[in-house]
Amino acid sequence: MKLSTQPYKGARDFYPEDKRLQKYIFSQWSTVCERYGYEEYDAPILEPLELYAAKSGDEIVNEQTYLFEDRGGRQVVIRPEMTPSVSRMVAARRQELPYPLRWYSMPVNWRYERPQKGRLREFWQLNVDLFGVANQSAEIEMIEIADAIMKQFGAPDGSYEILVNSRQLVDSFLQDELQLTVDTSNAIRRLIDKIDKISNTEFDSQLSQLVGDKPKVQIIDFLQATTLDELPAGIATRPAAQSLQVVLDGLIQTGIKSFRFAPKLMRGFDYYTGVVFEVFDTNPQNRRAMFGGGRYDGLVGIFGVDPVPTIGFGMGDVTLVDFLEANNLLPKLSSSVQVQMLPMGISVLEASKVAKALRKEGVNVAVDFSDNKTDKKIKSAVKRSIRYVVFVGPQELQAGALTVKDLDSGKERSLTMKALASLLQA
Amino acid sequence: MKLSTQPYKGARDFYPEDKRLQKYIFSQWSTVCERYGYEEYDAPILEPLELYAAKSGDEIVNEQTYLFEDRGGRQVVIRPEMTPSVSRMVAARRQELPYPLRWYSMPVNWRYERPQKGRLREFWQLNVDLFGVANQSAEIEMIEIADAIMKQFGAPDGSYEILVNSRQLVDSFLQDELQLTVDTSNAIRRLIDKIDKISNTEFDSQLSQLVGDKPKVQIIDFLQATTLDELPAGIATRPAAQSLQVVLDGLIQTGIKSFRFAPKLMRGFDYYTGVVFEVFDTNPQNRRAMFGGGRYDGLVGIFGVDPVPTIGFGMGDVTLVDFLEANNLLPKLSSSVQVQMLPMGISVLEASKVAKALRKEGVNVAVDFSDNKTDKKIKSAVKRSIRYVVFVGPQELQAGALTVKDLDSGKERSLTMKALASLLQA
Repeated sequence: MKLSTQPYKGARDFYPEDKRLQKYIFSQWSTVCERYGYEEYDAPILEPLELYAAKSGDEIVNEQTYLFEDRGGRQVVIRPEMTPSVSRMVAARRQELPYPLRWYSMPVNWRYERPQKGRLREFWQLNVDLFGVANQSAEIEMIEIADAIMKQFGAPDGSYEILVNSRQLVDSFLQDELQLTVDTSNAIRRLIDKIDKISNTEFDSQLSQLVGDKPKVQIIDFLQATTLDELPAGIATRPAAQSLQVVLDGLIQTGIKSFRFAPKLMRGFDYYTGVVFEVFDTNPQNRRAMFGGGRYDGLVGIFGVDPVPTIGFGMGDVTLVDFLEANNLLPKLSSSVQVQMLPMGISVLEASKVAKALRKEGVNVAVDFSDNKTDKKIKSAVKRSIRYVVFVGPQELQAGALTVKDLDSGKERSLTMKALASLLQA
Repeated sequence: MKLSTQPYKGARDFYPEDKRLQKYIFSQWSTVCERYGYEEYDAPILEPLELYAAKSGDEIVNEQTYLFEDRGGRQVVIRPEMTPSVSRMVAARRQELPYPLRWYSMPVNWRYERPQKGRLREFWQLNVDLFGVANQSAEIEMIEIADAIMKQFGAPDGSYEILVNSRQLVDSFLQDELQLTVDTSNAIRRLIDKIDKISNTEFDSQLSQLVGDKPKVQIIDFLQATTLDELPAGIATRPAAQSLQVVLDGLIQTGIKSFRFAPKLMRGFDYYTGVVFEVFDTNPQNRRAMFGGGRYDGLVGIFGVDPVPTIGFGMGDVTLVDFLEANNLLPKLSSSVQVQMLPMGISVLEASKVAKALRKEGVNVAVDFSDNKTDKKIKSAVKRSIRYVVFVGPQELQAGALTVKDLDSGKERSLTMKALASLLQA
């Protein structure tokens, strides 16, 4: 049987041109996170099954994990998301860590799903988390960072919007106002989470099965509010609503434009406890959630230590690249190879010495030692987006200068090594 | 049962201070590779089992892989090494890729082993590969890069040595000179690979079982040579020896000091076909192989395409960090957070505005929104290796200047935002 050259289904090979784009994305992510004082951390891609069983939500654990038994009989999972791992790390050093703790990471995650547009089995995900801040400055900062990242990639206002809701508000409405049980309230939340995937009649009928006619009407009213003032009477004065109002006011004062209150927004994970938010692609051809997060004050505590107030979000690379493509925001990226050197009638060792000297000047040089014709060598440089080729023959060695051809303009000139190095640093 | 906060056995959590070191290592690796014209690529961490069954060597595949069946019934492996993946990628685009192809990668690999000093189950590994060059300039470049990486980390000459051998030379000696069969020759090679792990008597007795007395003496003679001239008569004129001599001469002319011919060096993987090399820690307390590689001209061809001459090496992070520690080469790394801002009697929003303005100047700022006392806030900054704290109160807002405390010197001064930004860029 012939060995396949294809990557595993739903995963990607990154050839240098693909890797360049990935590095660009990672570097934009890092830049914004570090500007806001976040430090990078990492965790192993394998974790014990128990870590996810606790809180991640049933679909991910039961249907989407890469779960197996290792050679020592342990049930392990290739992580489907980073949040349980980072909570574990904080719990392990609960007492020593200096709060507020601002952490980010860019891990690869795996989920066994049907690969489709915007969704692969292997994906990278920026994770940004703030530990130890219970007040709303945390929510405001988190949403500000999400917005700053979109801007860093050049996304214009209007190309996305940030939906904001509060799990606490929803719970308070269902449990305190409508006096529903916790179980019914959770079931309703999960139903609302699916609202865009099922028909109105289907939603209506499932909601009827969960509650009576009067609560149903009130719930539908609740979901249609576009501001906190439009919520059914009695809610606005509850602490959850007032707390959310502080966040929304803060976002205005911080100068965030593209956000709105969205009472339908639930987010899938079970572990959220407060404000949740989601960045949504507003392109009519591509309307969908791109990424989001929220407050999850309970996760660190499941490890048997004092809980830590926490808020965070995760942003995947696959949907982001789709967004950048659709909005013409993909930059032209050139090779890390600045110069391809073509030795012309000199020995390999002589050529290596010139290359070495150029490298000492800080230039990234590849030497084409192949026996190909010059034409073919130049084509090879063009193919990999290298801008300059440098010819080195006996004449150049004698003159102490290089013949440099700019493949963009086609022009050739003679330059010393230092002159070439400063041209490239300009 | 209490959920464990420990990482999976043999794997590591990277807290920000650990991640800093990892990023330093990655950045040194990248810098050298890119100077030599190598471009970064990547591949998925999951691969089909068949990919390794072909060539990686029995121990790794049968005893050390993380092997499991996915939810679709496919036998998959978390990669134990990158070479099969990169060969697959080159084979997939055999015709289109521009040769010579210089590629590097810094993947995470997994092997189910007993964790011990210098060996973990999860490790990162620099992979450097040159495709499409059959002559010895490839060997020289590869060993030069290995040497340049050691120098980039500050390793002095003498703290390591590079052992060089040739599989072809060994095969030629055993098969052409001693007229042994391919199977016996392979068995002898595997035995020699274990030579430092077993006693002399054990080696002697196992060798006796494989060959007669006369060849045994000749083999032991062969293994004791320190230069090609010292090899048993007849070998030095064979092509394999002459080809290796070109490499050794080239290394001298390139200015590489810390290398020597080592006929005992075999390297574990079955796929090597020519020159092999290994960088060895010479510290008496820590004498051992750190990393290595060699020529493996056959791997791309197993995918049913024309073979491509290839040489490469892999360098793990765990042994490297041990080496840097033992040689006092670990640098002092400071936090990516340049400034911790402490709001003093101003609102969160006012503080956020100042932070935002500082970020626009390119400063990495974290704001301490906690209710902790000033002392505790300063301690928290010290703890995470942040050098400057900035106090912002009503006075500072009015004066348009910040009170900046240097935690290294303990000195305080008043600076405008621009002055602080240029101080940090200096």
